[in-house]
Amino acid sequence: MEEKKAFQDYYPELLSHCYGCGRLNEQGHQIKTRWDGEESVTTFLPESYHTAIPGFVYGGLLASLIDCHSTGTAAAAMYRSEGRSMDTEPAFRFVTGSLHVNYLRPTPVGVPLEIRGQVKEIKGKKVVITSSVTANGEVCATGEVVAVQMPDTMLPK
Amino acid sequence: MEEKKAFQDYYPELLSHCYGCGRLNEQGHQIKTRWDGEESVTTFLPESYHTAIPGFVYGGLLASLIDCHSTGTAAAAMYRSEGRSMDTEPAFRFVTGSLHVNYLRPTPVGVPLEIRGQVKEIKGKKVVITSSVTANGEVCATGEVVAVQMPDTMLPK
Repeated sequence: MEEKKAFQDYYPELLSHCYGCGRLNEQGHQIKTRWDGEESVTTFLPESYHTAIPGFVYGGLLASLIDCHSTGTAAAAMYRSEGRSMDTEPAFRFVTGSLHVNYLRPTPVGVPLEIRGQVKEIKGKKVVITSSVTANGEVCATGEVVAVQMPDTMLPK
Repeated sequence: MEEKKAFQDYYPELLSHCYGCGRLNEQGHQIKTRWDGEESVTTFLPESYHTAIPGFVYGGLLASLIDCHSTGTAAAAMYRSEGRSMDTEPAFRFVTGSLHVNYLRPTPVGVPLEIRGQVKEIKGKKVVITSSVTANGEVCATGEVVAVQMPDTMLPK
């Protein structure tokens, strides 16, 4: 059953300033990720200036979308694995341990991108998320992110 | 001997609209990369809103910097390998085949980041670049990019 609120809408206020996914970062991308069955989905329309070369989307943006999509999915997956909804305590928040992106073909600008994630592995404080970026029905990039629970030392004072 | 112009200053005009490194992309990062002996160097000061959580730099930005730093270094390395300066024809321009980033520690905001690249391998149309991102003298992330010569099909018409 799909939830209406996005994963990112449950992030605590102090942790909602991320340039990629923070709902309080006015300059940022503010991506929204939701479950679609066993997969997580983010839809994003790049800005006209997010170009690599004219006509194609900047690879760094794709990496950024994969990154935040995956850390969000990791958090949601941990709640699911505990049978808890995302508004219960303690809150899960993940940071990126490693990010890998394969660019398969040029990604066209001007169309919405769909990022789909799968939970590959949950092991202790670590969640591995694989994902794909699709434009016009074609997979343009794939990603794998190792997400780790945010250490307390990173919490804003 | 260090060159004064950056690698990106030699990119043909049509290929200078990249969000990460295009000198003609007014909304972009416009990074500048130069040789320092056998290594390539980019210095970049993130904006205040390029945050992951407050106080730390957004990982997607680091991935973006590593990406463009590496494709620029790949192009410069190909010229070097042919004993040519970057203002000679034919022009080399690289796109990213794959990007890998390891995040080693949180990257502080408010200080310049130094990205240093090494040419790991040149093989045909492919160049592998390894790199590190340093803040306050500490390596915060490392990267490996497989850069491939841009196919003609990507050239703007």
